[in-house]
Amino acid sequence: MTVQKATNIVWHDHTVSRQEREAYNGHEGCTVWLTGLSGSGKSTLANMLEDALWQKGARAYVLDGDNVRHGLNKDLGFSPEDRTENIRRIGEVAALFSDAGIINITAFISPYKADRDTARACAKEGSFIEVLVDCDLDECERRDPKGLYKKARAGEIPEFTGISAPYEAPDNPELVVNTTGKAPEDNVGEILAYLDANGYLSA
Amino acid sequence: MTVQKATNIVWHDHTVSRQEREAYNGHEGCTVWLTGLSGSGKSTLANMLEDALWQKGARAYVLDGDNVRHGLNKDLGFSPEDRTENIRRIGEVAALFSDAGIINITAFISPYKADRDTARACAKEGSFIEVLVDCDLDECERRDPKGLYKKARAGEIPEFTGISAPYEAPDNPELVVNTTGKAPEDNVGEILAYLDANGYLSA
Repeated sequence: MTVQKATNIVWHDHTVSRQEREAYNGHEGCTVWLTGLSGSGKSTLANMLEDALWQKGARAYVLDGDNVRHGLNKDLGFSPEDRTENIRRIGEVAALFSDAGIINITAFISPYKADRDTARACAKEGSFIEVLVDCDLDECERRDPKGLYKKARAGEIPEFTGISAPYEAPDNPELVVNTTGKAPEDNVGEILAYLDANGYLSA
Repeated sequence: MTVQKATNIVWHDHTVSRQEREAYNGHEGCTVWLTGLSGSGKSTLANMLEDALWQKGARAYVLDGDNVRHGLNKDLGFSPEDRTENIRRIGEVAALFSDAGIINITAFISPYKADRDTARACAKEGSFIEVLVDCDLDECERRDPKGLYKKARAGEIPEFTGISAPYEAPDNPELVVNTTGKAPEDNVGEILAYLDANGYLSA
């Protein structure tokens, strides 16, 4: 594919609006903010959701540790202050992606309510969808996909959420998906159904 | 418009690649990094370029002071250290937008070579297009669209680029556009021609 070769550009002071981008993409720009313990399944759901949206022709993009912690936020650690700044920046970047008409999906533990509220405050009203990825701590620790719980129990990782640092579950998330007893396909189906039922997948 | 309602999603571990996004959009994801003095015309060119690309059916998005300095980088001032961190973060965000398959256009003075090189280093090889928006200081000061030069001359703004802080012009930018003697439409035409000639507008 190639963009149009037409050279009949109309020069004016027009700035492309969010509404125009959304109409062009056929869906709203919004943030699906996944929050939950390490090992709860956030990254798995984020990637599957991105792919499912992609298969539907939507523009979706995952912001996660791989592309944010190693880049934009590589100067930050895991102290409460650094976690707060980490989430603040991600909230701002997510809002930029939403403004660009993209369904962005964030996959960060984001353990503090106040920080998630800050991220929500960056977003246009109604374009921030907080999804609690709910999973028992025991199950997360059993999965331990990165071996982090083992290290945390051994005292090798300080301030590890759920072990030596708090996780503040949201009081009123837009959606809760339970990954303890359900397959990720079902969890992603629930998120898609939420997006569809609430008008995010049309514009 | 609405995204497809089809529910025949194929579940797999697939992650949507940059190449797939670019093929879908019909153009590459890349950063058009405008650099130049205050008043040189960066924001004007950025917005006109975004609109021109939009009219061609491309996905383009401007990162500028309006949406970055007041959001992601609102904790930063104009000291050399803060300018460096400002540009570092913008470089990282620009790289994320490129990775998402979007033509992103940045409009920041970005006076230091080393900082622009840091931004370039965030980008995939060949996807960072540095454009010097060249304009005589006298002309910038004559335009003074925000009245900043006047304030800087009166000593009300410390560390003002071109007056009391240095501007390091790039040695080997991908492109130079001169806004002193040319209309912005012509400058944007030059940038579009560069993008087209170098394959950025097809994928």
